[in-house]
Amino acid sequence: MPTLGEFELIERIARLLPLRGEGVVLGVGDDAAVLAPPRGEQLVATVDEVVEGVHFDRRFTPGDAGWKALAVNLSDLAAMGARPLWGLVALAFPREEPAARVLGVVRGIAACARRFGMTVVGGNVSRAPALSVSITAVGAVAPGAYLTRAGARPGDLLLGSGTFGDASLGLEAGAAPALARRQRRPTPRLALGRALAGIARAGIDVSDGLVQDLGHVAEASGVRAVIEVERLPLSAAYRRRAARLADPHAAALAGGEDYELLLAVPPGRLGAALAAARRARTPLSVLGRFERGAGVRVLSGGHVRPAPVGHDHLRAPTPGFDLGPHASRISRGTIRRPR
Amino acid sequence: MPTLGEFELIERIARLLPLRGEGVVLGVGDDAAVLAPPRGEQLVATVDEVVEGVHFDRRFTPGDAGWKALAVNLSDLAAMGARPLWGLVALAFPREEPAARVLGVVRGIAACARRFGMTVVGGNVSRAPALSVSITAVGAVAPGAYLTRAGARPGDLLLGSGTFGDASLGLEAGAAPALARRQRRPTPRLALGRALAGIARAGIDVSDGLVQDLGHVAEASGVRAVIEVERLPLSAAYRRRAARLADPHAAALAGGEDYELLLAVPPGRLGAALAAARRARTPLSVLGRFERGAGVRVLSGGHVRPAPVGHDHLRAPTPGFDLGPHASRISRGTIRRPR
Repeated sequence: MPTLGEFELIERIARLLPLRGEGVVLGVGDDAAVLAPPRGEQLVATVDEVVEGVHFDRRFTPGDAGWKALAVNLSDLAAMGARPLWGLVALAFPREEPAARVLGVVRGIAACARRFGMTVVGGNVSRAPALSVSITAVGAVAPGAYLTRAGARPGDLLLGSGTFGDASLGLEAGAAPALARRQRRPTPRLALGRALAGIARAGIDVSDGLVQDLGHVAEASGVRAVIEVERLPLSAAYRRRAARLADPHAAALAGGEDYELLLAVPPGRLGAALAAARRARTPLSVLGRFERGAGVRVLSGGHVRPAPVGHDHLRAPTPGFDLGPHASRISRGTIRRPR
Repeated sequence: MPTLGEFELIERIARLLPLRGEGVVLGVGDDAAVLAPPRGEQLVATVDEVVEGVHFDRRFTPGDAGWKALAVNLSDLAAMGARPLWGLVALAFPREEPAARVLGVVRGIAACARRFGMTVVGGNVSRAPALSVSITAVGAVAPGAYLTRAGARPGDLLLGSGTFGDASLGLEAGAAPALARRQRRPTPRLALGRALAGIARAGIDVSDGLVQDLGHVAEASGVRAVIEVERLPLSAAYRRRAARLADPHAAALAGGEDYELLLAVPPGRLGAALAAARRARTPLSVLGRFERGAGVRVLSGGHVRPAPVGHDHLRAPTPGFDLGPHASRISRGTIRRPR
């Protein structure tokens, strides 16, 4: 396919995106978008980037890559209890990148944006040595109703949505389609996050691995988190694959990229949390609890077992948890406030 | 310098950035930022990306690259008449990138953010084959008071801030320091944009070249823009260099990256515009006018002369305006709404 000029390509990109929606006074098309923030609400904003060869590879269709680039952002909004409003998309790709592939990425972004009710209000295209997508997502939340990593208290229950470990096993060569799909088309738990915002005391989404991300909640809240491996919600496809692994819980504990939510809920609100999850049509399980102390403790048969560590985005894949030479581990880190 | 781990590096990045400011309820440090939009104002949002080897090269210090990455965004806010509030920064760089260089880029972003009163509320670091910085900037404007590219009418005067062409000549080997500085540390015209928002009918910032960006105003407004080359505001350093060029106005007309504002002002408001510019301490000149018709017409001695074309971000540098093999032309395109 011949290379399209910038203006033709940009016009084709814009045609694919949802450009009109709530609060969009002036969308894509001028020097900047003009937005009317929803009255009486606070805004929630986050940025993430995915890069070909780092966060996705040729096993991803262009549409998968675009979907995932937005879904990981929406997952951050979900973890805050926010509903999505607006997205700004920076696309970069090499000169030789076929236009069809770029447009495929945009279609994936558009499909995810439509599915979860987000409008794309700004965009940018650049040359770069590798295809990359950086997205800023903005959502809204009732004032003070957002969830943070801080707030878990000793005695709270540890709840988790969906199932864990599927996405990392989905990177293996010959992975079952159900596992590969979790890796390539993650589902941000937006409905659950909103439903639990008034019930849970703390929340986070799992991008780097259950133990590692739970460690952020434990640290920010000043408590210890305890996981019982027997309680880990595991999919049928995970169980089939994990039965042949030396440590059948390692992927669920440390695999990352599940984009499930972890929540701290007072025991007295468990019923309300489970009812809210049913209304949000999202599975929710008790994985363990919070107690006095620090860090994350993993129990197996009532005994402490070693917790596989999570992922450092700027180093090699986690030692002892290498998914093989073709594994393209998500490598992404949110910039955090210094302690 | 040894490679820092992700968490050490992120902590050092966060220490350098302005993290607290207007409307920041919860800044860098959780899954997403929580923001209180200023009551009664609209928001303005834009995204831009710069990539090493495409938009900047080793002639830029890391601090220059960081400054410019943010300044080009703030220039978009200036063109809308908005004041800056919040920024979200996605940094990507190769494994072998020295931490000192990454931190230098962050220092440049921080310097520009502090200078223009923006708080960094979100960030992300990724691996990538080349150093890149993608920034989303969010600002505020009184409801309906924003400037767009549409709105210029026949009879309006064409005004331009500062001087044109310096930034593109600043790319040449051996460029005068005043020209190189315009290329590496552009000044977003935020004070002028705000001051003119109630006076001008249309506005745009010059990233791709005066003629090309003016063409967007002409198209969006349904008018013709006329520039008189004798009126082009040129710096002393530009004049010295351009005297030795075959076409001494080409760089001012097509060079790009000046990040000056172009504005359409009714003749009856010229005095008000010039007074507002003085209060904003920003030079403002009449470059020409708008009339019935379409496109951009460049007059020299009262006669139409060929207008050098601007830059297509996804193709090679503009034919006939090649700044040499080492020229790293800005290559960036805002995604526009389809016509």
